[in-house]
Amino acid sequence: MVTVSHSGSPPEVEWRAENLTIPERTERVESTDLEIKVLGPCRYQSPLVGRLGQRALHQVGEADRVLLDDRYSRVVAARAGAPADLPDPPTFELAGPRDRIFFDPAKLRVGIVTCGGLCPGINNVIRGLVLELTHAYGVQTIFGFRFGFEGLVDGVGQEPLVLRAEMVGSIHQQGGTILGTSRGGQDPGQMVDRLEALGISALFVIGGDGTLRGATKIVQEIERRHLTISVVGIPKTIDNDIHFIDRSFGFESAAAAAADAIRSAHVEATGARNGIGLVKLMGRHSGFIACHAALACTDANFVLIPEVTLHLDGEAGFLRHLERRLEERAHAVIVVAEGAGQQLCKDAAEITGAGGPTSDASGNARLKDIGLVLRDRIARHFGGRGTEITLKYIDPSYQIRSVPASPSDSVYCWNMARNAVHAALAGNTEMLVGRWHGRFVHVPLPLATRFRKQVDVEEDLWMSVIEATGQPATFG
Amino acid sequence: MVTVSHSGSPPEVEWRAENLTIPERTERVESTDLEIKVLGPCRYQSPLVGRLGQRALHQVGEADRVLLDDRYSRVVAARAGAPADLPDPPTFELAGPRDRIFFDPAKLRVGIVTCGGLCPGINNVIRGLVLELTHAYGVQTIFGFRFGFEGLVDGVGQEPLVLRAEMVGSIHQQGGTILGTSRGGQDPGQMVDRLEALGISALFVIGGDGTLRGATKIVQEIERRHLTISVVGIPKTIDNDIHFIDRSFGFESAAAAAADAIRSAHVEATGARNGIGLVKLMGRHSGFIACHAALACTDANFVLIPEVTLHLDGEAGFLRHLERRLEERAHAVIVVAEGAGQQLCKDAAEITGAGGPTSDASGNARLKDIGLVLRDRIARHFGGRGTEITLKYIDPSYQIRSVPASPSDSVYCWNMARNAVHAALAGNTEMLVGRWHGRFVHVPLPLATRFRKQVDVEEDLWMSVIEATGQPATFG
Amino acid sequence: MVTVSHSGSPPEVEWRAENLTIPERTERVESTDLEIKVLGPCRYQSPLVGRLGQRALHQVGEADRVLLDDRYSRVVAARAGAPADLPDPPTFELAGPRDRIFFDPAKLRVGIVTCGGLCPGINNVIRGLVLELTHAYGVQTIFGFRFGFEGLVDGVGQEPLVLRAEMVGSIHQQGGTILGTSRGGQDPGQMVDRLEALGISALFVIGGDGTLRGATKIVQEIERRHLTISVVGIPKTIDNDIHFIDRSFGFESAAAAAADAIRSAHVEATGARNGIGLVKLMGRHSGFIACHAALACTDANFVLIPEVTLHLDGEAGFLRHLERRLEERAHAVIVVAEGAGQQLCKDAAEITGAGGPTSDASGNARLKDIGLVLRDRIARHFGGRGTEITLKYIDPSYQIRSVPASPSDSVYCWNMARNAVHAALAGNTEMLVGRWHGRFVHVPLPLATRFRKQVDVEEDLWMSVIEATGQPATFG
Amino acid sequence: MVTVSHSGSPPEVEWRAENLTIPERTERVESTDLEIKVLGPCRYQSPLVGRLGQRALHQVGEADRVLLDDRYSRVVAARAGAPADLPDPPTFELAGPRDRIFFDPAKLRVGIVTCGGLCPGINNVIRGLVLELTHAYGVQTIFGFRFGFEGLVDGVGQEPLVLRAEMVGSIHQQGGTILGTSRGGQDPGQMVDRLEALGISALFVIGGDGTLRGATKIVQEIERRHLTISVVGIPKTIDNDIHFIDRSFGFESAAAAAADAIRSAHVEATGARNGIGLVKLMGRHSGFIACHAALACTDANFVLIPEVTLHLDGEAGFLRHLERRLEERAHAVIVVAEGAGQQLCKDAAEITGAGGPTSDASGNARLKDIGLVLRDRIARHFGGRGTEITLKYIDPSYQIRSVPASPSDSVYCWNMARNAVHAALAGNTEMLVGRWHGRFVHVPLPLATRFRKQVDVEEDLWMSVIEATGQPATFG
Repeated sequence: MVTVSHSGSPPEVEWRAENLTIPERTERVESTDLEIKVLGPCRYQSPLVGRLGQRALHQVGEADRVLLDDRYSRVVAARAGAPADLPDPPTFELAGPRDRIFFDPAKLRVGIVTCGGLCPGINNVIRGLVLELTHAYGVQTIFGFRFGFEGLVDGVGQEPLVLRAEMVGSIHQQGGTILGTSRGGQDPGQMVDRLEALGISALFVIGGDGTLRGATKIVQEIERRHLTISVVGIPKTIDNDIHFIDRSFGFESAAAAAADAIRSAHVEATGARNGIGLVKLMGRHSGFIACHAALACTDANFVLIPEVTLHLDGEAGFLRHLERRLEERAHAVIVVAEGAGQQLCKDAAEITGAGGPTSDASGNARLKDIGLVLRDRIARHFGGRGTEITLKYIDPSYQIRSVPASPSDSVYCWNMARNAVHAALAGNTEMLVGRWHGRFVHVPLPLATRFRKQVDVEEDLWMSVIEATGQPATFG
Repeated sequence: MVTVSHSGSPPEVEWRAENLTIPERTERVESTDLEIKVLGPCRYQSPLVGRLGQRALHQVGEADRVLLDDRYSRVVAARAGAPADLPDPPTFELAGPRDRIFFDPAKLRVGIVTCGGLCPGINNVIRGLVLELTHAYGVQTIFGFRFGFEGLVDGVGQEPLVLRAEMVGSIHQQGGTILGTSRGGQDPGQMVDRLEALGISALFVIGGDGTLRGATKIVQEIERRHLTISVVGIPKTIDNDIHFIDRSFGFESAAAAAADAIRSAHVEATGARNGIGLVKLMGRHSGFIACHAALACTDANFVLIPEVTLHLDGEAGFLRHLERRLEERAHAVIVVAEGAGQQLCKDAAEITGAGGPTSDASGNARLKDIGLVLRDRIARHFGGRGTEITLKYIDPSYQIRSVPASPSDSVYCWNMARNAVHAALAGNTEMLVGRWHGRFVHVPLPLATRFRKQVDVEEDLWMSVIEATGQPATFG
Repeated sequence: MVTVSHSGSPPEVEWRAENLTIPERTERVESTDLEIKVLGPCRYQSPLVGRLGQRALHQVGEADRVLLDDRYSRVVAARAGAPADLPDPPTFELAGPRDRIFFDPAKLRVGIVTCGGLCPGINNVIRGLVLELTHAYGVQTIFGFRFGFEGLVDGVGQEPLVLRAEMVGSIHQQGGTILGTSRGGQDPGQMVDRLEALGISALFVIGGDGTLRGATKIVQEIERRHLTISVVGIPKTIDNDIHFIDRSFGFESAAAAAADAIRSAHVEATGARNGIGLVKLMGRHSGFIACHAALACTDANFVLIPEVTLHLDGEAGFLRHLERRLEERAHAVIVVAEGAGQQLCKDAAEITGAGGPTSDASGNARLKDIGLVLRDRIARHFGGRGTEITLKYIDPSYQIRSVPASPSDSVYCWNMARNAVHAALAGNTEMLVGRWHGRFVHVPLPLATRFRKQVDVEEDLWMSVIEATGQPATFG
Repeated sequence: MVTVSHSGSPPEVEWRAENLTIPERTERVESTDLEIKVLGPCRYQSPLVGRLGQRALHQVGEADRVLLDDRYSRVVAARAGAPADLPDPPTFELAGPRDRIFFDPAKLRVGIVTCGGLCPGINNVIRGLVLELTHAYGVQTIFGFRFGFEGLVDGVGQEPLVLRAEMVGSIHQQGGTILGTSRGGQDPGQMVDRLEALGISALFVIGGDGTLRGATKIVQEIERRHLTISVVGIPKTIDNDIHFIDRSFGFESAAAAAADAIRSAHVEATGARNGIGLVKLMGRHSGFIACHAALACTDANFVLIPEVTLHLDGEAGFLRHLERRLEERAHAVIVVAEGAGQQLCKDAAEITGAGGPTSDASGNARLKDIGLVLRDRIARHFGGRGTEITLKYIDPSYQIRSVPASPSDSVYCWNMARNAVHAALAGNTEMLVGRWHGRFVHVPLPLATRFRKQVDVEEDLWMSVIEATGQPATFG
């Protein structure tokens, strides 16, 4: 297979339609959805006992929990005089070190795999896992599988690296992943074969929602074989679209890099009469990165996201607004998330027919690029009116996703990794480390992959964008 | 007065002793502590009605509230079958735009003042206030007082700037504050005289806890005169030590700059045999910036904070640990918060006697610098043992606090400012905009200045530092 | 006209063929080529007299000159015992302030125009011109024409800005040009009409070789009308391809930004099995930016420049080398200057036929993009062999050219601007400010536009690239 | 020995007085001063033959030379009709690869040592030496001595590292030197003993003028023993004060970091009424870094350098100028090179008497810090006048010198290293690689250490600073 990509992330497994259209609601989660699987009773005292403070260590099975919804109207209102049989509101288990653990660290063999697209901070997470496993727990053997799930299949991928603390000391200073990555799944049976062959009892899976669903399949195969292998996910999504994660690791770094690209577009736009800077950012289903980058840079005049339908034509359409902007200020900066205006891309495909040299084998895929569609539609619109414009199209995706993690993302990744190690050592499985209202928590994989986080167009983030850009809340 | 400072923030009004030694506990807050004062009933429809989404606007008096403590053990456990007269747990009022407002924006005259030390993001906040007041509400007259509270006293400070949207468009690209700042208070009577003279009905005060206590005095004077002037605080603390603020604005930018200084210290330390890099960071009472910077940079071997007593001598003392580190690795990086080891500074002052050229008029103040004390004690220690060391002392405070806000701090400042404007327009007063578990909330000034936030040495942040550095949890 | 560009600079007026194929030789320059035109005798004492040091001021007509070629073999060898009638070797006039000047600064009206593509540092040059004219010479009236030569034609472009020192104080902190720019020429007659109408006697033209040839036409028109208007060029070329300029302003900043893009490509390439990062950089006729960026980043494995013919096929062809690289290291980073392999683009155009949505009106122009051609040829090559590759294509041109000037470029731009002002005030015309062997010199426009600077493939820069990348000196 | 330093470079061996006061003149150099020593005839064909282009390789003994002084008035004027016995003007030998070399690379054992203070780019040079020796010439054994000349003495310093290409691939991404450094000399006899013991025939010495004089002593000892060991210097000086080097490596990176510190000072100064930002930069005898940083940042109002006598008092003194600046603009930024105003430091020492806690053992050394002296004198001056000021003192030296090399410094270091390797392999010795008028040249060590480069206060750099800051050319 030859994968050739022009900037922009390749397609992923599609999310189910209902999740795309219905925004998430915490009320759709029940207490039972939040229970974490464990491999068995914790038989060993943690090596952290004695080293860490009293309150820092949770008693196994006694860790405090935090409310899924901490608003008075959802929790407290029902409290006074509530019937005794009212079910408890949903709560997450707090992450963190436990006083007792399931695995004997001295014998434990661990695997790490990174899947899906690049994202700032992956190397920080790998580093954090290896250092915490080694220095805090004394784990001796850590395999780093190469190039995603492919490396978990014997005979297909390359041999895993044997990771040691001294190898990872400064890997966080570079972007990407030292293990390499790939997209797409592999047969769970073959993957579990490999885990068994290598004697691995804890697998850390760093990846997005497709990957995490793959991890669930590995868990199912493990359970079918009655093995005691823990599978712990570390959610990676540059789009920030995995639920129950306040902010995904690397998101801040990526948004900062995206803000730089918007700044470039602004410089280009102001450099020409009727200059238009058009920046396509990541965001297949969720416009978080477009919103945050636009707020950070403050030069964007229009932010187009998947959550808001993009109508181009008509008096209230985008093109008319763009026209007015040019009349008033003679330049404009547009930020478009790659998942915005998908219905326009379908139309474009039908109109344009056979692909040019930038199309792929099947001829059409490339045409679905909203950035190019928008570029052409804008050109046609102003061309038809005899208005001279100068449009510069910027597609910075690869340069955004390959930056090293920012300082605060580095701190975050380190804590994400530590908590993943604590969770796995305590025998938790089929879960990921989430971050909810500022605390690290355990989130069951099936729950995390059931919802997708999107920008709520009636909530504060989108309002903030509307106020900052001056654009209308909707087009058309 | 001549203020001459060697890097490092000047002394502030002292915090009360009990707050320094007893770490904050949310259980010490009661519901009544969280009530927000209002100037009167909201008589005007907000200009944002119609522009913003339905759910984005809170009904006046009906805004949802969020729990101060969202842990199951504190809230939910007491729930089922609780007696009907159990008081509600404390909750914060959510910030955000209201459907109705107290002031007529067309007539409103507003003042902005920035006080205390510099911090990344002040210009972002000023910009956000001016843009939101102007574009969202249509406020016409905004005064920017010069050089802190001093500018609020007629005849003493300079005349205020009249701020307009086009003046502040790009001020966020530079650090510091375009208004200037100063420390210390002024007579509340004179300040309110000025507000009355200028017809100001809403005053935004950007400053730390001393400033916020000053703001409370202004409120008291306003109430004494039965005026309807709203005073809204925007908490500024590079030390991140104001409570009920998950993370203060500019903190992340400052921690990133501090991480750079630690990196320099590491380069210096590894460049010499038995090289020691010693970095003094801000943190008079709270070690947050030292902890975060050390985690972000990963090169620090020792992090010394005010919350952990610093014993230098003895087998478990700091100097012995430093000795071992040099024996093993031949270099060491030490990060010390300026408020750490204050008892050592007292001793140093007694020993040294009259000050050299770096002391101030009173002779002693400069000697309390823990960085210099530590530098001298380390030199004496190894000198006494005949061990050659090369110690480089770095005091980067001014270079840290003067950086422009990072992209994510910029987003944060913008939202902080927007919510302060919403609060003032709705007639709230004697409050600040806080951020609690990821949400913007209203926090009464008396509550915010009653506690100081410190690093809890039995909680996760400190554990994370201990694991990252390998240092012991305590010295001595 | 609608100009829609996908990253990458638009086509320029073609250079004459002979200059493209025959590398420049300093021996083709004669003394007479280096004579600078002057408008007349210098009638006024410079206001800098008394302010600047004795040696800093050149006596008019007596400024020292520097050798075009300072190698012994060219100059000194012929020296001892040379016949008395041997002509002097070519020398440049040194730039710098003169003791006497041609214009009365108090009455002088000045114009500034920026043309062609963006480049880091243009705002620095504008700032430098305005500050030097104002503060050093006391010039009162400075017009900034909008959007290139277009702004010099009355009734077509917008009205010029009136530039004052306080307006330009911090414009150098942003990329681009505050005046705006455009490509293409205008009628010299109309432009000189405008200069006369506005009473302008000195015009500073910031632009590339096309622009500078345009400036020559303005001079011809000025001479035809017997006007005393000085026209001084400031050479702007992000490709560093203007001769007699050691390094063009902004080049270093652009190369640094390009090195970042190569680093991204490296992260992408190492992140996938058989990962290929392909970066297209500027460089229509000269590969300087590709070479410098590759040397600065050190991650590039192949650097393809216009000066070296690119053969893809055959045992010594590029594709075979790429194959070997993947076999050995499983990833590769390729940097290609936009002007490399143009013969391959012609072929591609013939093969591909009608354009897709990324082609322009005439259908073919876009196909000449060597980046896309190379991307497709690589994909086809490995696809035909059944080798799975993952290729990421990065086209960072707009993000490179829009960065602000680096600190050292800022210093350089400031000095470039100062010397342009000195030259114009002394009545020099039809010249540009060059930099030769570390000194600022006066270069006649006809000479500067006669040669193009290219990478000499037998000299040190190219050798340095070959040694750094390990690639062969030629392909095929 | 315990070396404790507050920011700022430690004292170096003093330069001879005459060089400090008399600025260098190229006319003081004669042809014989420029002759390079060689160890013997070149017996081996270079492995680069066949790989590099024809013109890239110099014939041994036939390399072209470049004029020391390329000004017409010095060279050409005397040309036509000159007497046949007129001596040739001084010329440098061009650096670069030779067709034949002196050493057999397969057998050659090489040493590298880094001495003196840190400077950006040292790791780049080490990396360049190792890669060029290994990949271009096939040298097998390269020793990296630890911590300066100390590592060259058996039994005193640590064992040398054995450097291999794969170890140095990414060391340039960090500042400092992986070998470590130290100041001060060692016995040449012991050092040559070590070279002999290890079988080293080529030693690369990276260091400043003290170090290079040390290298000369090593050469003398080598010659005394009739050994064939090449000693090649690579001049390292963050102050840019070594002659015959247009710009020293790392200087640009350091000046950029210094410009950042000035920007901080500006933010601090504008943040307070009568705010003064005072930045002390490196520059013991030469103010290059102060000048360049001030030009790059454009926020400095006063630049004080060793080359210009600093008079504080009197109507034309510095303090009066500062007063006027505050009266006009209410803030000021001062940049002072550490070597400026040394006569004031002497006075200060006499006045102050016994040192405070920041003084060293002998009590006085610390008082010579012009930054602190100036800080105190300014405070006293305005205190005496009853003018309130707020002065912030910034001493960023360690943070400046520890930054990684900028992209263009990286390119420069790579070429510096390559040419040093070419020179050593060809059997040249007691020389350094210089850069003269844009070309790499061979400079004899005795010549390079005979002159110090200083800012010529009647030439363009200083004029440029005066025009940019608006300060007077001299004080008092």
